Amino acid sequence: MAKVLSGAGLRGQVAGKTALSTVGVSGSGLTYRGYDVKDLAENCEFEEVAYLILKGKLPTQAELDNYKALLKRQRDLPNALKDVLERIPAEAHPMDVLRTGCSMLGNLEIEADFSQQDDITDRMLACFPSIICYWYKYSHEGTRIDVNTDDDSIGAHFLHMLHGKKPSALHEKVMHVSLILYAEHEFNASTFTARVCASTLSDMHSCIVGAIGSLRGPLHGGANEAAMDMIERFNNPEHAEKEMMGMLERKEKIMGFGHAIYSESDPRNAIIKQWSEKLSEEFGDSTLYDVSVRCEAVMKREKGLFCNADFFHASAYNFMGIPTKLFTPIFVMSRLTGWAGHVMEQRADNRIIRPSADYTGEDLRKVEAIEHRV
Amino acid sequence: MAKVLSGAGLRGQVAGKTALSTVGVSGSGLTYRGYDVKDLAENCEFEEVAYLILKGKLPTQAELDNYKALLKRQRDLPNALKDVLERIPAEAHPMDVLRTGCSMLGNLEIEADFSQQDDITDRMLACFPSIICYWYKYSHEGTRIDVNTDDDSIGAHFLHMLHGKKPSALHEKVMHVSLILYAEHEFNASTFTARVCASTLSDMHSCIVGAIGSLRGPLHGGANEAAMDMIERFNNPEHAEKEMMGMLERKEKIMGFGHAIYSESDPRNAIIKQWSEKLSEEFGDSTLYDVSVRCEAVMKREKGLFCNADFFHASAYNFMGIPTKLFTPIFVMSRLTGWAGHVMEQRADNRIIRPSADYTGEDLRKVEAIEHRV
Repeated sequence: MAKVLSGAGLRGQVAGKTALSTVGVSGSGLTYRGYDVKDLAENCEFEEVAYLILKGKLPTQAELDNYKALLKRQRDLPNALKDVLERIPAEAHPMDVLRTGCSMLGNLEIEADFSQQDDITDRMLACFPSIICYWYKYSHEGTRIDVNTDDDSIGAHFLHMLHGKKPSALHEKVMHVSLILYAEHEFNASTFTARVCASTLSDMHSCIVGAIGSLRGPLHGGANEAAMDMIERFNNPEHAEKEMMGMLERKEKIMGFGHAIYSESDPRNAIIKQWSEKLSEEFGDSTLYDVSVRCEAVMKREKGLFCNADFFHASAYNFMGIPTKLFTPIFVMSRLTGWAGHVMEQRADNRIIRPSADYTGEDLRKVEAIEHRV
Repeated sequence: MAKVLSGAGLRGQVAGKTALSTVGVSGSGLTYRGYDVKDLAENCEFEEVAYLILKGKLPTQAELDNYKALLKRQRDLPNALKDVLERIPAEAHPMDVLRTGCSMLGNLEIEADFSQQDDITDRMLACFPSIICYWYKYSHEGTRIDVNTDDDSIGAHFLHMLHGKKPSALHEKVMHVSLILYAEHEFNASTFTARVCASTLSDMHSCIVGAIGSLRGPLHGGANEAAMDMIERFNNPEHAEKEMMGMLERKEKIMGFGHAIYSESDPRNAIIKQWSEKLSEEFGDSTLYDVSVRCEAVMKREKGLFCNADFFHASAYNFMGIPTKLFTPIFVMSRLTGWAGHVMEQRADNRIIRPSADYTGEDLRKVEAIEHRV
C-alpha cells in the first residue's frame, strides 16, 4: 500500500497546502502572501508583517495603531510564570527556557477553543520577548526587570529590556528588518512540526512549544550563533581567510552558508548584509563586518556557496550588543507568526498527518520465557 | 519539482524507516520488534517491553532486575520542578502539565550530547508518573506527596501515589498490560512529531515535549477519556443502546471505535477487554463493563465499526479508581518508550524532515504605502 518516496526527509514531497509563502519560486526568492520579502523589509515594520501573516492583509494605519497598542498592553507576565523562570538556571539552553515559558503560559491562559486562536497568538507575540529577557536578566544578573515598557515595537521592547534603555532609531529599524526576514518560510522543519501537532487538533501552545523544540536543533535554528562563534575568533580579514582555508581543508562544517531549498542565493542575505554594514559604521569598529565579507568571498570562491539569512545576522546582532545565546530566541519571536499562521491554516482544512514507515526490523517471533533469554 | 501526493495527511506515504513496530500487517496486527503485542501482554511486564523497545532485545532476568532497580532510583523530582508543578492550577489540562514538567526537566537535566540519550530516556520513564501525580495531588488535594515509593513497577508506582496505598496484584498486572498495549505504534502523529523534531538534531526533551503536545489533540490521544465520558452516562445496557441509537441518528461523533490503519479490528481491544471484565468482577459492580459490551455490539451492528484500544481502557481505568483526566497522561507514561525509540532511530540515520507545500495564495504584488491601504 505504502509508496516509497524518492528522497529521505520528505524532500520535494508536497505535504499540504499553504497561502502563506513561497520559497525559491523563480522571479521571487521569498514571498509572504504574495509580497516579496525585500519589499516588506524596505517598507514595513515587523508588526505590519505579523498582521499580514496572521490576519491575511497589510494593515491600514488605524489597524496598525490598534494592533500595536493591543500587543503593548500584553507584555507583562503572570506571577506564576515569573516564578517558573526564576527557577531555571543560567546554564540552561535559552530555547529550553522559551519552550518551558510558552508551555507554562499554556497552563495559565489555556486555549479553550479555536475561536481564541488570534488572541492566544497575539499574547505570545507580545510576551515572548518578556519571557526570554526576564529569565536572562534574573539568571545572569540577579535582577527582576520590569517587562512593561512603552516602546513602540516588539524589537525595541526586546532591546530596551536587554540593555535597560531605549534603543537608537537605527537599532529599532534593524530589529524590524531582522524580524521580518525570519517571520515565515513555508514547510521548514519547525513549521512542519507545528502543523503535525495542529493536525491532531491540539491547542496553539502545544503547536508552538513543539516548533520551538524543533527550531532548537543545530540543523535548523542556531546557525547564526554558530556563525558568530566562528567570526569572533578572527582578528581581521586576512586571519579569517587563513583560518577558513584550514577549516575547509580539514572538512570542518562551516555554518551560515547554503540552503536546503535555495540553490543560487538566499534573498534575505543582501538585505541583512547592508544593515550589518550600517551598524558597523555606527559601532565605530567594522572588523566583524569586514571579516564577514571576507568569509563570504572565500566560501563563494572555494565552494561556490552563498551566505544564507543567518550569516550576516551574526555581526548585525553583535553590533547591537545582543549576547550570542539569545540569537535563536529572537528567531522564535519572529517565526512565531509563521508557525501560528500555519496552525490556523491546518485547522481550517485538516486531516491528521499520519504517514507510514518502511519496516526494516525482525520477522515475527515468539516471546521466550525470561529464564531462557540470552 | 514537488510531487503532489495522493492523500492528505501523508496517508499511506512512507516518511522513513523503522525497526520498532509493524501496524496492520496481515497475520499480526501489531508487533514490537517482531513480537506480537498479544504475546508480550500475556508474558511480559511493561519494563521488559520498555527494555525491548529502547535497548533492542528482551532482557534476561538479571538485566530486568537491574533495569527496574535503575528506574526505581530515579523516581524523585528536583525541587525546582516541584516548585513549577505547584504553580500550575487544578484547572490546567493534565497533558499541559506533563508537557511543562518534561520541558522544565530539560532545563535542569540537559541532554548535553546524544551519548546520554539512554539515561535521559530512562530518567523520564522513571519520573513521569511522579510529575503527574505530584501535580494532581497538590493541586486537587493540597498535599505534597512523597514520590519515592518502593513499588516494583512503574504502574504500581503510579497507582500507589494516586491512592496512597500499594495496589492489588490484579491492578498492578492490568497496568502492565495497559502500558504494554500503548507503548508503540509506528508513525502515528505524536511519534512523527518526535521524529520531525529529532531530525533537526534537537535534544530528547524537545522531541518528547513536542510528542506530548501532539498526543494531547482530540484526534489522537484522549479517546479513552471521551469514551469514559460517554459510558458513565449510561445506567445499564438497555439505556446505553437507546442513547447510542440516538447519538447515531443525530450523527454525533462516538469515540473509541475504528482506526486510521486497522480495517478489521484493533488487536489491542480483545486484550484490554478481558482485563476490564476481570476488574469488573473484583469491583463487584459490572455495570460499566456490561454497558461497554453493549456499546461494542451496537456499533458493530449499526456501523460495522470495531472497538479500538481506547474503548475498554475507559472502564478498566475507572475500575481501578483512576480519574478520567489522568487517562491520557498514562498513555504518555507508556508511549514515551516508542517516542524515544523513534528519536534514537532518527538520529542514527538522519536527514532533516523538510517537505514542500502546494502554494494556493496570492500572486506576486507590491507593498502599497500604508496611507493607500484599505
